[in-house]
Amino acid sequence: MKAEIMSIGTELLLGEIVDTNTPYLANQLSVLGIDLYFTSAVGDNSARLLGTLKQAWDRSDIVLTTGGLGPTQDDITRDVIATLLGEKMEVDPQLKQELVSFFARRGIEMPESNIRQATVIPSATALVNPQGTAPGWWVEKKGKIIVAMPGPPGEMHYMWENQVLPRLQQRTGAVILTRMIKTFGTSEAKVDEMLADLTPSPNPTLATYAKLDGIYIRIAAKAEKEVEARRMVDGREADVRAILGDIIWGIDDDTQESMAGRALIDKSLSVAVAESFTGGFLTQTLATAADNERYFKGGLIAATGEAKMALGLDPKLAKSEDKAEVARAMAVLARQKLDATVGIGIEGESGVEPESGMVPGTVYIATDSDKVDVHTVQSYSGRLYQMKRRAAYYALFDLVKLLKA
Amino acid sequence: MKAEIMSIGTELLLGEIVDTNTPYLANQLSVLGIDLYFTSAVGDNSARLLGTLKQAWDRSDIVLTTGGLGPTQDDITRDVIATLLGEKMEVDPQLKQELVSFFARRGIEMPESNIRQATVIPSATALVNPQGTAPGWWVEKKGKIIVAMPGPPGEMHYMWENQVLPRLQQRTGAVILTRMIKTFGTSEAKVDEMLADLTPSPNPTLATYAKLDGIYIRIAAKAEKEVEARRMVDGREADVRAILGDIIWGIDDDTQESMAGRALIDKSLSVAVAESFTGGFLTQTLATAADNERYFKGGLIAATGEAKMALGLDPKLAKSEDKAEVARAMAVLARQKLDATVGIGIEGESGVEPESGMVPGTVYIATDSDKVDVHTVQSYSGRLYQMKRRAAYYALFDLVKLLKA
Repeated sequence: MKAEIMSIGTELLLGEIVDTNTPYLANQLSVLGIDLYFTSAVGDNSARLLGTLKQAWDRSDIVLTTGGLGPTQDDITRDVIATLLGEKMEVDPQLKQELVSFFARRGIEMPESNIRQATVIPSATALVNPQGTAPGWWVEKKGKIIVAMPGPPGEMHYMWENQVLPRLQQRTGAVILTRMIKTFGTSEAKVDEMLADLTPSPNPTLATYAKLDGIYIRIAAKAEKEVEARRMVDGREADVRAILGDIIWGIDDDTQESMAGRALIDKSLSVAVAESFTGGFLTQTLATAADNERYFKGGLIAATGEAKMALGLDPKLAKSEDKAEVARAMAVLARQKLDATVGIGIEGESGVEPESGMVPGTVYIATDSDKVDVHTVQSYSGRLYQMKRRAAYYALFDLVKLLKA
Repeated sequence: MKAEIMSIGTELLLGEIVDTNTPYLANQLSVLGIDLYFTSAVGDNSARLLGTLKQAWDRSDIVLTTGGLGPTQDDITRDVIATLLGEKMEVDPQLKQELVSFFARRGIEMPESNIRQATVIPSATALVNPQGTAPGWWVEKKGKIIVAMPGPPGEMHYMWENQVLPRLQQRTGAVILTRMIKTFGTSEAKVDEMLADLTPSPNPTLATYAKLDGIYIRIAAKAEKEVEARRMVDGREADVRAILGDIIWGIDDDTQESMAGRALIDKSLSVAVAESFTGGFLTQTLATAADNERYFKGGLIAATGEAKMALGLDPKLAKSEDKAEVARAMAVLARQKLDATVGIGIEGESGVEPESGMVPGTVYIATDSDKVDVHTVQSYSGRLYQMKRRAAYYALFDLVKLLKA
């Protein structure tokens, strides 16, 4: 089965927005095992949209479109699909009623132009969109499929997961199950090397992804029944764990901060942070984690020597060149001032290599609980932003290891 | 002149990366006044790449490609362009020498496969790429142009700005000058309404963009000579300023934090921040601003009542429901503890509307200098993340107004 993706909207051709719908759908299709060979963007112009849609319809089995389902005159996706298939658009009374209710709940009368969104053609089934006014279309004709979804990513994702994915899974005649295993502290090349010992297999598949909070391994299994797919994924996960061991810190929706939080809650402990150089990334990460009020006491961000002194750091240390020592002192400061069981201090330094523009840097992460430890992280990164974020993840990974020890 | 963009690489069809090259180039083309009607992505497959390239060549005047210029067998952009035009690829001795030197400077011998990157065809001029090994191609034949650029965004941007843009500007026979005017605190709809009084004009053009740190207005003028284009842009900027007045906070590369920093440095003042709810966004923004060590004393992030008390807030206040009062106290605390001339305190609260998933919220921003002020910001946002970020920008905008008063 061959799919094709079309993103519709003149704002895409003006470079006003970045198209995240296409990579989202492309990734979903790869997991489903559906081949994707072409993606394109086209503007709100009838002739060009019809031409591009016709080409997609002719060369692919499934065409996924996003955009063009709004109520304005520029929203022509429905009209063009109708023209392509030679079918007539009619207002569906139930869709119309649902739209009228959507506006009524917000205390507004439905604007005239929104009636366009209640239309269907004979080959189309409307797909519910509770987050917006535009229902999608699932169109089937002559053994081919067009799925027309809204442009706003939140609305599209919801419709895809709840309406489209189940229908497509039925078509592929199989259940797909995935699991994302998350590791940290080891390079992608090294992880690939370690996993090379596993017997290669077309099903389940393994794919690695490099993210800021580590290297992810995605296991995907395809089977007739869910229980079979689950068995295959569980088996492959066990294989991966046997090889990767404790560089694995979580799976699926786990985040480094949620893992740290869980470990702290389990042991009725709390953490506080003092950061310099990383500008607050660790504090922010913990401050936005679910349930953080149960374990996060807060963070002190000191951008300068004066600020460090103002927060209580010894003046000699505040100006010290020995960054490891400063990080240690900041961990102790955070723990004491914010009355936490564990204090984390982060200090760092970086330079810029003039020729290549690369940023060599070192981050010092200290933890203060019963004893004070310092973890040095050498980094040679093209982007300071990445280095700072990664330092926050190193700190969380260290914290979890500390708590488990 | 009609342009078309092609992003080449199978990783795009697997959804492994987000294509930012296309919106970057689309935006650049819109500023140049070159029409863009189609963009597409295609994988590292000869037949499909040739088919897509041929279609682009036939229907457009300029084809911009990114990707496929690496040294591996999957990098086929050069080969496909050669096939399309019926020309033969030959190794250019100078390009080869430059490649050999590139590796020598890093203490490596050039790998065999990189020789592919030193090839050209008769209709192609090599475009320098100092940040990577792949030169680009500027190809002209039969009145049409193909520009093949590297995939990595950093390398592509550099080549575009330094090699491609000047050549294209010569082709369009005009100079394009743009200026971005940045406003804050007024909705896009209201800004559009205010600007509707301006006489509409095809040159210079006006376009508005909604960003997290405000509404931007882009002026673009096209003229034979730069001095003429500059005169037109200056004139339009004056018109816009006459209407928008003090909702304008900066132009072009100005950031809210750089404007705040400039105002503080001018008056030899300093600022410190105490944040709750916004989780450190304001602190981080100031901590990463250029020259911030001259005016930013640091930030205190208190995620909980206990943390606020640990930092010195009165226990009654730390638990208070009166968020405006808490914000005021936090501004005073930041000013005193971090020894700054101005303290900013941010407190907030939000709920979640179960039906729509929308997040109504209120953020309280207090400033403490000679007197203590509080600014309340009502917000009804779909995304908590956006609200928190916008609160930081409200705080900076308020700070600049305070300093100018």
